[in-house]
Amino acid sequence: MAATPDLQPTALLALDWGTSSLRGARIDATGRVMDERAFPRGILTVPAGGFAEVFDTCFGDWAREGAQACLISGMAGSKQGWVEAPYCACPAGFADVAAELRWVQDARLHLPTAIVPGLSCEHRSALPGLAGVPDVMRGEEVQILGAMHLGGWRDGLCILPGTHSKWAWIRDGRVTTFRSYMTGEFYALLSQQSLLARTIDTQAAFDADAFGLGLARTGQGGGLLHNAFSARTLSLFARMDAGPLASYLSGLVIGEELRAQDVQAAARVTVIGSPSLTARYALAFDRLGIPTHRMGAEASWAGLHALSHHLPHRTPSP
Amino acid sequence: MAATPDLQPTALLALDWGTSSLRGARIDATGRVMDERAFPRGILTVPAGGFAEVFDTCFGDWAREGAQACLISGMAGSKQGWVEAPYCACPAGFADVAAELRWVQDARLHLPTAIVPGLSCEHRSALPGLAGVPDVMRGEEVQILGAMHLGGWRDGLCILPGTHSKWAWIRDGRVTTFRSYMTGEFYALLSQQSLLARTIDTQAAFDADAFGLGLARTGQGGGLLHNAFSARTLSLFARMDAGPLASYLSGLVIGEELRAQDVQAAARVTVIGSPSLTARYALAFDRLGIPTHRMGAEASWAGLHALSHHLPHRTPSP
Repeated sequence: MAATPDLQPTALLALDWGTSSLRGARIDATGRVMDERAFPRGILTVPAGGFAEVFDTCFGDWAREGAQACLISGMAGSKQGWVEAPYCACPAGFADVAAELRWVQDARLHLPTAIVPGLSCEHRSALPGLAGVPDVMRGEEVQILGAMHLGGWRDGLCILPGTHSKWAWIRDGRVTTFRSYMTGEFYALLSQQSLLARTIDTQAAFDADAFGLGLARTGQGGGLLHNAFSARTLSLFARMDAGPLASYLSGLVIGEELRAQDVQAAARVTVIGSPSLTARYALAFDRLGIPTHRMGAEASWAGLHALSHHLPHRTPSP
Repeated sequence: MAATPDLQPTALLALDWGTSSLRGARIDATGRVMDERAFPRGILTVPAGGFAEVFDTCFGDWAREGAQACLISGMAGSKQGWVEAPYCACPAGFADVAAELRWVQDARLHLPTAIVPGLSCEHRSALPGLAGVPDVMRGEEVQILGAMHLGGWRDGLCILPGTHSKWAWIRDGRVTTFRSYMTGEFYALLSQQSLLARTIDTQAAFDADAFGLGLARTGQGGGLLHNAFSARTLSLFARMDAGPLASYLSGLVIGEELRAQDVQAAARVTVIGSPSLTARYALAFDRLGIPTHRMGAEASWAGLHALSHHLPHRTPSP
């Protein structure tokens, strides 16, 4: 915790630059979020060499208003992003991540701007020809750090549901290992692109009973490949309507994600994400008798703010 | 086995009318396939009321050449098909299926023509609000009957890989229960529509080693939602190329299908489908030390031919 008060920003510009969206917040020295903005300018929409310009268009006014640094998490640090920030290997905490920041060198910038690296870990497989399988995250590591900072804990399990959900185990303030699950993408593919799409209404209101049935069905085994087909036959035999079927399918995929884990072993469980999604995970954990803490976008800002206290003594001038 | 020699067809017209394709064969009294034809005229391409016309266009010449009956299996018996043939409930064998044939009433037909029903079964779940989950097949039941007939067995396990793979358990000549797996559809969605599509070459030659790694990876647990993501990270870390990755992903999904079953308990295992697909399943079973029998399109024709020996005493005139 080598805090450097003289160089700490009086206001931090915090950005979460993902694949499809760009969010930013202006944060004061105490960590309070003063403003937030979101743009549909994910890295996929930014042409090569165009990041500084998009940054200036979206946040140039804030950058000129006295913020001492800008920290950017997410896919902006990927190969297709602004500046590649190689993955920081687990175990990793504040200091490890801060040590791997990549400062953006661009004369057009009005403040020191750094990209936060993602995390990587290795799942050993002991298979001949496949000694290990890597796993990666970008952006979630900052949310995890933020959850730790806000919650004042250093040991637990963080779950970040989404297109590619992450399960991260934290010990003594560092992420020791994590696993990705393509849960959100599977749900989108199944409900919108598969045979099931014809009889599922993804716009229907959430149905907790049907969601619970999906969870319970998963708990009986059979596997997702088989259970997903039940969404077809329940419709074919008019046993479930298109609305509840969406929630049932959601229960099947989230249940499958939980089933792959030894969730009983987790100490403190924090679920970070959108309110609607974290509510579903809380329900699923509830059925297992495991209490959860829920957190939203504030985790990103808290993480970037806390990380700014770990900046190296001298930030480069822009 | 109430065979009725006087009414048995000297030549059977056998059709497998599926969702996307229409196949037919002319079969002599001994069961020998004399001719085969295939058309891209699956039921999705047939307008309402247009089945008789498509039938006549594709097989009218055969229908006029003295065949005594025509049996049609597959989606032609679905709600969206020619004549709905409600599912025959398991347990079901030759006699049960024959008793549920639906004869097509159409003055334009030149021979007695019947639709073979699919099979249904019920997976009891004992969940409040979901006492059971139905399962269905259409077309595969005829292949199973054909495999029994050709192989001369009455007890075993039949696997029919495909878009929606079927696992059917047969006892004393009747399908007692079966399970569907959306394996083929998952593979297509993942390899063509998901994030993985960018780094997977589905046109590459089959790579047995990579396929084996996928199978082995599945055997280590983690679940498909997690393991599928490894196809992404192995590419990201340049540990596997786009070609082998397609076979690896194939191993992951087929391995997941096998993992959901107690395959060791199976007596005789018959895999019915295309040569390339049944070869993969044979490889997967090989690794478990379980021998398999493989069978192709001949199973459909043998099944429809054998079924024609179970026709009711009097077939309606066309």
